Amino acid sequence: MTQDFHDTPVLALCGGVGGAKLALGLYRTLNADRLTLVVNTGDDFKHLGLHISPDMDTVLYTLAERSNKETGWGRENETWTFMSVLKELGGEDWFQLGDGDLALHVERTRRLAAGQRLSEVSEFFRQHLGLGARIVPMSDDPVQTVIHTPDGALPFQAYFVRDRCQHTVKGISFEGAECAAPTPVFVEQLEDPSLRAVVICPSNPYLSVDPILALPGILDALRTCVSPVIAVSPIVRGEALKGPTTKIMRELGVARSNAAIAQHYEEIIDGLIIDEADSADLDTITLPCIATATIMKNLNDRIRLAQSVLDFAERLDSRRGDARNGTVS
Amino acid sequence: MTQDFHDTPVLALCGGVGGAKLALGLYRTLNADRLTLVVNTGDDFKHLGLHISPDMDTVLYTLAERSNKETGWGRENETWTFMSVLKELGGEDWFQLGDGDLALHVERTRRLAAGQRLSEVSEFFRQHLGLGARIVPMSDDPVQTVIHTPDGALPFQAYFVRDRCQHTVKGISFEGAECAAPTPVFVEQLEDPSLRAVVICPSNPYLSVDPILALPGILDALRTCVSPVIAVSPIVRGEALKGPTTKIMRELGVARSNAAIAQHYEEIIDGLIIDEADSADLDTITLPCIATATIMKNLNDRIRLAQSVLDFAERLDSRRGDARNGTVS
Repeated sequence: MTQDFHDTPVLALCGGVGGAKLALGLYRTLNADRLTLVVNTGDDFKHLGLHISPDMDTVLYTLAERSNKETGWGRENETWTFMSVLKELGGEDWFQLGDGDLALHVERTRRLAAGQRLSEVSEFFRQHLGLGARIVPMSDDPVQTVIHTPDGALPFQAYFVRDRCQHTVKGISFEGAECAAPTPVFVEQLEDPSLRAVVICPSNPYLSVDPILALPGILDALRTCVSPVIAVSPIVRGEALKGPTTKIMRELGVARSNAAIAQHYEEIIDGLIIDEADSADLDTITLPCIATATIMKNLNDRIRLAQSVLDFAERLDSRRGDARNGTVS
Repeated sequence: MTQDFHDTPVLALCGGVGGAKLALGLYRTLNADRLTLVVNTGDDFKHLGLHISPDMDTVLYTLAERSNKETGWGRENETWTFMSVLKELGGEDWFQLGDGDLALHVERTRRLAAGQRLSEVSEFFRQHLGLGARIVPMSDDPVQTVIHTPDGALPFQAYFVRDRCQHTVKGISFEGAECAAPTPVFVEQLEDPSLRAVVICPSNPYLSVDPILALPGILDALRTCVSPVIAVSPIVRGEALKGPTTKIMRELGVARSNAAIAQHYEEIIDGLIIDEADSADLDTITLPCIATATIMKNLNDRIRLAQSVLDFAERLDSRRGDARNGTVS
């Protein structure tokens, strides 16, 4: 990777925990102000009168290195007095809200009620957490991921948290997406002639990335942007490291394979990164693909994968340049 | 005190900390379902988008014996993670909100937004805290205590908490009181022919009791109710045990004396209880008055004072009965 790569804009799309790990790797690899993270808000919901943005908060906590390493979600040094009293009072206690976590929900809700946009609230939090990267919600307009099951349609959190992904998924829709405007920063980045890479983080493609892709104009913008678009597969040895990705693939009748991930994104990506354990899959994937270590157990893993992604983008970009210049790589 | 007194209705009016101590004494002395507590809501305010009812919460915590003995306000076993994160995020941090305390504010706000009345929310909390007494806000309609100072008019909490009572008080008003309906339970109790006593707890007369008395029809109802109305003076040796009562009396040009408290309530009370340390004041007070231990350091003190109040009510009641029967006491 050339040094100047650090100084050119990189855009990453991500959902919650898995995606945020690579986002942190990118954040620590690039000059922070070159990185723009676009975060899924299809999981956002109203609960106890509060506006909760689970993926945004996960990204904020992860980049600020304040995520809870033990639980894999929420804040470090969290306390749970609120939940215990809420339970005692007979309140709804199926969604765990830590005491520190609540500060973001209360302050976000207050600011939204005062007329601020979600992106303004996120910007306020970003600044106060001292984060250099741009971190924007995919849209300031409401989008709700809905899970269609034999038991009826369920809002995302009811499916994911309350019912612990027990229902069979027959389909997934993103209510409001068709008339939700992508955040201006998101569109500007995709149109930036100096953009060097778009990274689709190893978040759940169906639940966390598809809501972003469902926004008007985004698929076209990804197809026509100047930079390579690279996805990192969330699957290793036919299983997701976390969450219901492969359960959903099975239920949707999709093979649990890297080839299926490649196919899922084929309209928009220029390259796929799969795990080194799956290098045998390289033959099954027709678009440019590399195999490297994608399991991110610690900060070094995150940074190493981020560097692999950026190196791969640079190689794809020079190949595209060669193609533009009439040479063949 | 005769045993059957335990089984007749008693109504107590109270504000926060000082008043709640006697409320607990009454709660432990009477059969719980005979006691109705009417709580000041003039201090209620919106903060961070939450509906906060400080006096109501103090009464609930005190009766549930979960109040914080060290701070004198808030809940026992409280944690403060929310405040510390809110401060870090640059949120408004002048009003201390404990993590457990927040559960009541969030749940109350949610229920009010869903269309419940404040009295329904209080009833829900009361049940879940396992309390037998009726505990009702003075009104379901908004009333705001406003402090008039040389620096302008201040909402109560800005004066009391944010500015720590520093301003000189020129006057106090209760915005909305003139068109706020007293809670139905409050009115029913005052009209109950079996009512045995109305107790004005030793709360701040100007800040905590006057908002209740400012509600339409309450002064008349107190004058005409069948039972004696007894106030417990919040002053001992010319000083309030807690809070700005005597500072406000000085600023309003009122003598800091039990006689002034008697005069403040003279239109509605049948008797006053002052502290034993002030027994010399008995000569200065024209209405029926007794001196007894009013400083409540522990539960025994609270129960002893409650019994004194009920005994005094019984004596006054029999005297009124004698008067009704044409005999002279």
